Amino acid sequence: MSETPVEKYRAISPAEFFYKYREIAGFSNPARAIYQTVRELVENALDATDAHGIMPDIKISIRKVDEIQEFYRITVEDNGIGIPPDVVPDAFGRVLFSSKYVLRQTRGMYGLGVKMAVLYGQMTTGRPVEVITSKPGFKRIYYFKLRIDVNRNEPVIIERGSWRKNREWHGTIVSITIEGDWGRAKPKIKEYLFKTAIVTPYANIVALTPDDEIIYYPRIIDKIPRPPLEVKPHPHGVDLELLKQIISSHNYTSVEELLIKGFQSIGEATAKSILQQAGIDPGKPVSELSDNELLSLVNTLKSMKDIRAPSIKAISPLGSDVIIAGLKRVFQPEFVYAVSRRPQAYQGHPFIVEAGIAYGGKTPMSDDDKPIILRYANKIPLLYDEGSDVTTMVVKEDISWDHYMVSFPAPIAILVHVCSTKIPFKGVGKESIADVPEVRKEIKLVLMDVLRELKKYLSKKAKEEELKKRAEHLAKYIPEVARGLSVIVANGSKDFEVKLVQKLVSIISRRTGIPVPEIQQVLESIRIGA
Amino acid sequence: MSETPVEKYRAISPAEFFYKYREIAGFSNPARAIYQTVRELVENALDATDAHGIMPDIKISIRKVDEIQEFYRITVEDNGIGIPPDVVPDAFGRVLFSSKYVLRQTRGMYGLGVKMAVLYGQMTTGRPVEVITSKPGFKRIYYFKLRIDVNRNEPVIIERGSWRKNREWHGTIVSITIEGDWGRAKPKIKEYLFKTAIVTPYANIVALTPDDEIIYYPRIIDKIPRPPLEVKPHPHGVDLELLKQIISSHNYTSVEELLIKGFQSIGEATAKSILQQAGIDPGKPVSELSDNELLSLVNTLKSMKDIRAPSIKAISPLGSDVIIAGLKRVFQPEFVYAVSRRPQAYQGHPFIVEAGIAYGGKTPMSDDDKPIILRYANKIPLLYDEGSDVTTMVVKEDISWDHYMVSFPAPIAILVHVCSTKIPFKGVGKESIADVPEVRKEIKLVLMDVLRELKKYLSKKAKEEELKKRAEHLAKYIPEVARGLSVIVANGSKDFEVKLVQKLVSIISRRTGIPVPEIQQVLESIRIGA
Repeated sequence: MSETPVEKYRAISPAEFFYKYREIAGFSNPARAIYQTVRELVENALDATDAHGIMPDIKISIRKVDEIQEFYRITVEDNGIGIPPDVVPDAFGRVLFSSKYVLRQTRGMYGLGVKMAVLYGQMTTGRPVEVITSKPGFKRIYYFKLRIDVNRNEPVIIERGSWRKNREWHGTIVSITIEGDWGRAKPKIKEYLFKTAIVTPYANIVALTPDDEIIYYPRIIDKIPRPPLEVKPHPHGVDLELLKQIISSHNYTSVEELLIKGFQSIGEATAKSILQQAGIDPGKPVSELSDNELLSLVNTLKSMKDIRAPSIKAISPLGSDVIIAGLKRVFQPEFVYAVSRRPQAYQGHPFIVEAGIAYGGKTPMSDDDKPIILRYANKIPLLYDEGSDVTTMVVKEDISWDHYMVSFPAPIAILVHVCSTKIPFKGVGKESIADVPEVRKEIKLVLMDVLRELKKYLSKKAKEEELKKRAEHLAKYIPEVARGLSVIVANGSKDFEVKLVQKLVSIISRRTGIPVPEIQQVLESIRIGA
Repeated sequence: MSETPVEKYRAISPAEFFYKYREIAGFSNPARAIYQTVRELVENALDATDAHGIMPDIKISIRKVDEIQEFYRITVEDNGIGIPPDVVPDAFGRVLFSSKYVLRQTRGMYGLGVKMAVLYGQMTTGRPVEVITSKPGFKRIYYFKLRIDVNRNEPVIIERGSWRKNREWHGTIVSITIEGDWGRAKPKIKEYLFKTAIVTPYANIVALTPDDEIIYYPRIIDKIPRPPLEVKPHPHGVDLELLKQIISSHNYTSVEELLIKGFQSIGEATAKSILQQAGIDPGKPVSELSDNELLSLVNTLKSMKDIRAPSIKAISPLGSDVIIAGLKRVFQPEFVYAVSRRPQAYQGHPFIVEAGIAYGGKTPMSDDDKPIILRYANKIPLLYDEGSDVTTMVVKEDISWDHYMVSFPAPIAILVHVCSTKIPFKGVGKESIADVPEVRKEIKLVLMDVLRELKKYLSKKAKEEELKKRAEHLAKYIPEVARGLSVIVANGSKDFEVKLVQKLVSIISRRTGIPVPEIQQVLESIRIGA
């Protein structure tokens, strides 16, 4: 009983860390792994196209490649900007290597996804990843087969080659073979493609499944959201570590130059006022700043009140047209509406919240306590952990549905899209957004925006139905009244009776606002009914 | 509008990754950061003591150290096994360096926590971490002041020293200064200490807060759970990558030796049968195994049916005594019960689920739909994300509370502890456990175990109350009957009447099972009432 453990210390590489704890990146079992692999490859494909102004053509194939074992080869092809051949090995074989570590909205964010899929493939099937890629204007197409050395976190190239292009093709084709559970993953993958298609109506997406089913979402609009551009850090998002990184990344001579060139939203006047507040001489060489001066600078930057909000160049909302097109495609609703709100900021990051609403048509019935919720972050659908997502909190706690004439269940779907240079995800699996007060408030406001329109529609609809009822009620008396008057005044003249009916219809129409043809329709139905 | 972004690829160090995405490790704002820092330091302190058979004495101090800014210095001292001086710089200054990357139950798991606190400190206050440590038997005490070079993921030593011990002290003292929000963090930190004290009744825990409040949980039992010991991987948890790691970590001559020495639960006979099934010659040199043979070996190992379950040496449950002592301390319940279930396994990892239940006494009233839930994983309390935790799912979906005579709200608290060599946490912030079928089933079973006992208690209590009512009912007639009979039979003799009362009391007691004194008490109350 007195035996106690010996502490054995060791460092592990990021590759080993994420291999060991793969479930935190969504690779917890063969079902989740196949879903996650499809998702990571599709999101990289979309990032390589629409974020560069290219209309995406995405081809996905999932094939069973072993008679006995559940081994699946997942291939995703895009028509994007390709990957420079000297970068390919690291981009697929080195964890924490990425082009996504900049201030710019992208679907990818952590530089983890595709490497996790490669790791999962090599730990379950031993098969390497295969990559074919070419950039626009390049004369050759490049081919790589590689795996990850987990201990060193380095790519190991197994095969490489290149050939001349005979046609102007650019893009990337990635194939990864993993152990999967297609049966259990299938509904989630289909839901993923369905929800992706809603927010990318400008893309062609076609998928071939192991059941030989073809899932096809053709392009339905030609408008593509404006590509996001990289920006410099905003003063409100600065901390000591970031300030030191900005300083060491360039050779700024004076601290004034550091502020103007190292940050967004700082001009000469603002720089001067910041330095005065921080008690630092504008001409002071950056290298001579003391620790206390750096701290004072950070505090002043973080708390500056009259500074321009973070630039929205870096973010790319869908826009209401795209949302409406997407919702119409899948729900063919009787009412649809969408709003993009104005940009806001949290911790120096700009963000925009957008929402759409679909009512009736083929919109399915919701649950007993809330509408169907379609959650999106930086254009990717979020499928898991709905219960702990900030949008669900807003829907359940912050909105008085009664006020908008909505009682559940109802054929209502809402779509909420948050886009930002940094989404406050609750985990690297990117399944739900944390309850950040600034974001929560905007989600509430955007839902109120779309719900106000829904309320208008519903109350107009209710009024129309009410009017129709009244019209039916009044119209019932028209034939009788017309005949009676005709007998008294015009010896029962049929001509007079017909004119009288027309007159009465137009009077009722004028006084109730119901169009003449509708009243005539009611009369017609009475005539037939009688 | 035709401007498109340029893809700039770069690698970042694990330190930069977790600095950038600190919220996924729980450092999302100054309130969470101060809570998380206390928690990480306390958990390291407990791992350094009870996991080595030492009764923990933990001292925590949280002090405001700046007049204007919300800077807090958090110091935690333990009487544990200390850290070797050559290891200190990496243990505090290199992300993904740890003694926790082994198969053994520890509170720490990711090798991240304390470095995240150090990073948060240096990005908000610029202050380095300070460490004082000495191992048992060492003659000197060592002192370090250091920070993390984020780009290189390396410790930078600012100051170091050592001095001779004048008394036999061993342990570690860590001080970290961070920007915090004590006001908002305070309730969570108090809840954390309260819940930690419940499962460590064998520890002295004292904390001094910025409000000069002293929170003290003295040791109340002398029994300490058996320390966990490192074990080798179990065959059911193997994958290709792990197999390759095991192979490269030792110089095994034959594949048979690899199986017997590299894994737990494999003896000579099992090794032979595995190799036969995989179609590999037992004497084959490990270096000559082909990729296909490795894959076939993995498949055979993973699917071996008649193999010993994973060793439980590596896990350390609390035991029912500790749970009961902990629940009694805080709730002084009228009923308390606890159960440790037998070990189970998932993915080659052994795990044990334990539960306790407290009813009545000072147990607070629960919500309207569920009991108070105290969640623990490897002896650490889980405070956030209750809604997405597997225990909450079991409580809400898998248990018929009616069946156990429980309707909410009720003064009921349940405690669930999952311990394992690998807890399936949903994120590196360690706030909730994922819905793993094997774990979920055990949680359901353990709750049924403790609820059966609660039901027995509640039905016994109900029966006793019923009996008491009946006794009261019967006892009411005793005086009258006794007087009446006394008048008829013994001329109203007081003596006879008294004897008759005693006789009747004993008859009722015999027939109802109610003790004589209780019936007499009822009689007494009637007499006084009359």
